[in-house]
Amino acid sequence: MVSQDYKSMLNGKSVIREMSAWATKRGAEIGYENVFDYSLGNPSVAVPQEFTDKMIELLQTKSPMELHGYSQSQGIPAVRAKLAEYLNKTYGMNYTAEHIFMTTGAAGAVAHATRAVTKPGDEVITFAPYFPEYQQYINRTGAVLKVVAADTERFQINFEELEKTINEKTAAILINTPNNPSGIVYSTETLEKLAALLHAKQEEYGHVIFIISDEPYREIVFDGVDAPYVSKLYDNTLSCYSYSKSLSLPGERIGYVAANPKCTDAELISVICSQISRGIGHNCPPSIIQIAVAEVLGLTADLGVYETNMKLIYDELVKLGFTCVKPGGTFYIFPKALEEDSVAFCQKALKYDLVLVPGDSFGCPGFFRMAYCIETEKVERSLAALRKFVEAEYKA
Amino acid sequence: MVSQDYKSMLNGKSVIREMSAWATKRGAEIGYENVFDYSLGNPSVAVPQEFTDKMIELLQTKSPMELHGYSQSQGIPAVRAKLAEYLNKTYGMNYTAEHIFMTTGAAGAVAHATRAVTKPGDEVITFAPYFPEYQQYINRTGAVLKVVAADTERFQINFEELEKTINEKTAAILINTPNNPSGIVYSTETLEKLAALLHAKQEEYGHVIFIISDEPYREIVFDGVDAPYVSKLYDNTLSCYSYSKSLSLPGERIGYVAANPKCTDAELISVICSQISRGIGHNCPPSIIQIAVAEVLGLTADLGVYETNMKLIYDELVKLGFTCVKPGGTFYIFPKALEEDSVAFCQKALKYDLVLVPGDSFGCPGFFRMAYCIETEKVERSLAALRKFVEAEYKA
Repeated sequence: MVSQDYKSMLNGKSVIREMSAWATKRGAEIGYENVFDYSLGNPSVAVPQEFTDKMIELLQTKSPMELHGYSQSQGIPAVRAKLAEYLNKTYGMNYTAEHIFMTTGAAGAVAHATRAVTKPGDEVITFAPYFPEYQQYINRTGAVLKVVAADTERFQINFEELEKTINEKTAAILINTPNNPSGIVYSTETLEKLAALLHAKQEEYGHVIFIISDEPYREIVFDGVDAPYVSKLYDNTLSCYSYSKSLSLPGERIGYVAANPKCTDAELISVICSQISRGIGHNCPPSIIQIAVAEVLGLTADLGVYETNMKLIYDELVKLGFTCVKPGGTFYIFPKALEEDSVAFCQKALKYDLVLVPGDSFGCPGFFRMAYCIETEKVERSLAALRKFVEAEYKA
Repeated sequence: MVSQDYKSMLNGKSVIREMSAWATKRGAEIGYENVFDYSLGNPSVAVPQEFTDKMIELLQTKSPMELHGYSQSQGIPAVRAKLAEYLNKTYGMNYTAEHIFMTTGAAGAVAHATRAVTKPGDEVITFAPYFPEYQQYINRTGAVLKVVAADTERFQINFEELEKTINEKTAAILINTPNNPSGIVYSTETLEKLAALLHAKQEEYGHVIFIISDEPYREIVFDGVDAPYVSKLYDNTLSCYSYSKSLSLPGERIGYVAANPKCTDAELISVICSQISRGIGHNCPPSIIQIAVAEVLGLTADLGVYETNMKLIYDELVKLGFTCVKPGGTFYIFPKALEEDSVAFCQKALKYDLVLVPGDSFGCPGFFRMAYCIETEKVERSLAALRKFVEAEYKA
């Protein structure tokens, strides 16, 4: 019989996907260029030409046996060594290849890291607003995701609520900075306060508490914003990365877990991840993509467009009277809706072909997300629709 | 704390890997060309130039957003449609895109297919000799792998033992034809007998029993051997495929699950697999590789070398007095050792720089595996070592 457990998941439709499907359908009616589709976090800028050139060069010059051969399940040793060196140079760390585990994107990284440092029944804490797929990544390991209510003033960490939630069963804290959906970057102050609390709690409970740090937006940080490297501020950190956003390669499924060399059992994390892989048939990310990204470390797609888009939208939102924390990075913004029911708010916006996602999915009702990874020209045109929407529905 | 469960797996070293490590170490001493390394099932022929050319063409001509964009978690719709059409043409099936789920190789396919049709506590039956990683692929889902003792005369199915093992908890039968490690192809007679038994048992137990058919060696079949398409003979079949061997792309992790359109809940298997993916962070196989394999369907690497190697080895083994079932495909042969203790036998062979793997790992002690995916020239040189080994150790 087919699994009733997984079958039951088919009913839980993703609101983000539903909004995106609406945009596609509406696009077929009026032309997609006229739908202001802020639903999906899909990079809107192309991979850099250097990456494409490197891929072609590899295909033309490298032995196919080497290029397409089995990688160790931890990842290709030379790739892991290059990556360790790059991270050391960039963030002042001391990784070696043995601290790196190559994954299929940040999703694979978070799912592996969680299995590596929890057992069934353990609790993993995250902070609203949060990426909804965390429910799957965490709960499917047998651990239990606990969500701390948002600090809606600044979208930093609500420490009062965290202190109520953390307990002896807490095995890990899952953070995401720069953050989807708020666009906020956790400050050094926030991370130091978190580190201090976790040190105290480790002492109190007599066991380690890991930070699983989901960092696919690490390079998308706006002018003047301080974006600390989380692992630098707390030793028991597993950094989870993806090249999906920085290189605009979401389909190629390439990322890694980097275990802080000073974390508990640092030398075991990567090999334990490779054991986890055996049970899910993951084995290793695609070898040619591993090799290619290691050849272009530090390179990013032209990410400047996201800041341009953010400024246009933020200024207009403020002008229209929205309460909105200014994003420090990513390609998301998370304003407060103009009525309490953000689902109703987003439904009304559809009349103006504005596709917004209610904050409820992110554990933060009353707000809404705009994913502004779209053409700047379209952002500009969308502002008139936004004005019309607000004036007609809320100022009439 | 790091997972003690996964940590404990680190002690269970793979004998295949240990033998391979011995070969590498010995190679450093005497030159790897002088080590007759039959340990690993790693393709020895290159990917066809047509595949490389197609990859370069895609990189040069296709929009990077399309080439590297997010794929649906079931796989890229156009790729799945092409694949369905290819399978229909080749095997006389009636697949549509909705029956196909793209995976990271056959490992991912078997792991997903098992989760899709079992619940924790269900039993999955396989037949010795079998690929040792099945223990992980099955048991890590919460289902329980049951192994039926080998038919050591022919390496077809030992039906007498199967009848003793099958019971109401049996949810699926996991088969692998052409078989690693025996090299045997299940005959139409074997598969029809299996299908008849499963039909009777489905009736008796009042629930469906799936065949999970692991078929990475489907195209490596030797002259004159009949290799039936399993799904054609039993409707409740999930075919698990990988391009690792047929295209020599083991590192690129690309394969699929194809659910027989007549199987129970046929239209649900692929979408259920995509839900399973969410919990393990798999998401989808690399998009450029999905697109590229769909452009070269039916193409294979130059697989003829494996048959050449098989004949050389088989003839020599027979001449030396080994009992050995002649392989019908793959790049493996599984002869009976010349003493009861096949571990001791393989240890002695190392003195002659012959790296063989004892059958114990495959659930079939007393036999040994040779993976002859190596250069034919090396196979030829290895025969003298084989003669010397047998004469010195067993005929002196």
